[in-house]
Amino acid sequence: MEKLDLAKTPQPPYYAVIFASVRTEHGNEDYARAAERMAQLASQQPGYLGVDSVRDANGIGITVSYWSSEEAIAGWRRNADHTITREQGRKHWYKEYELRVAKVERAYGFKL
Amino acid sequence: MEKLDLAKTPQPPYYAVIFASVRTEHGNEDYARAAERMAQLASQQPGYLGVDSVRDANGIGITVSYWSSEEAIAGWRRNADHTITREQGRKHWYKEYELRVAKVERAYGFKL
Repeated sequence: MEKLDLAKTPQPPYYAVIFASVRTEHGNEDYARAAERMAQLASQQPGYLGVDSVRDANGIGITVSYWSSEEAIAGWRRNADHTITREQGRKHWYKEYELRVAKVERAYGFKL
Repeated sequence: MEKLDLAKTPQPPYYAVIFASVRTEHGNEDYARAAERMAQLASQQPGYLGVDSVRDANGIGITVSYWSSEEAIAGWRRNADHTITREQGRKHWYKEYELRVAKVERAYGFKL
């Protein structure tokens, strides 16, 4: 899932799901496989606009996914595979996380 | 500025500034010094609620800072040191960035 550029999103308004997390020290392979699969599944959901995702060597990660509407976020939340994987996340992969749903009101970018 | 836990924020609503960026390959020391200084300055601004910040080995970073209001964000934007440092960021440190201002509508967390 490693990308070397940033998500390209339309003009606001749209929604962002900000997921900040701290990984446990185990399950790296299972986690990587599930993360890859979830990224792929999410990208097929109606209303998906893109994602930016980073994790550092300390196990702290931030994933921000972008969605056209609250309904699009709710649809992804109800996805059956995603629901099962969230459960595994809480049981095995995360020490801590914070999830925030936010409405993007304005945005601007810069590129060399 | 390395932290091993996540920002603790009050109940929504509040604001998030989502800053996703790609570093150039140079200026690491200057950048680290400026980032540390900006984090410290931001934390002294009225309406600052916290920050989560991660950069990976590929130079992709996401920093999400949390603010009580639009006015608090505008205040930080007007800070003179911050204004000068933003200019250096565009000149020297970033290949690309996207900045989004978003209103956090709901949030929930998990901790082992």
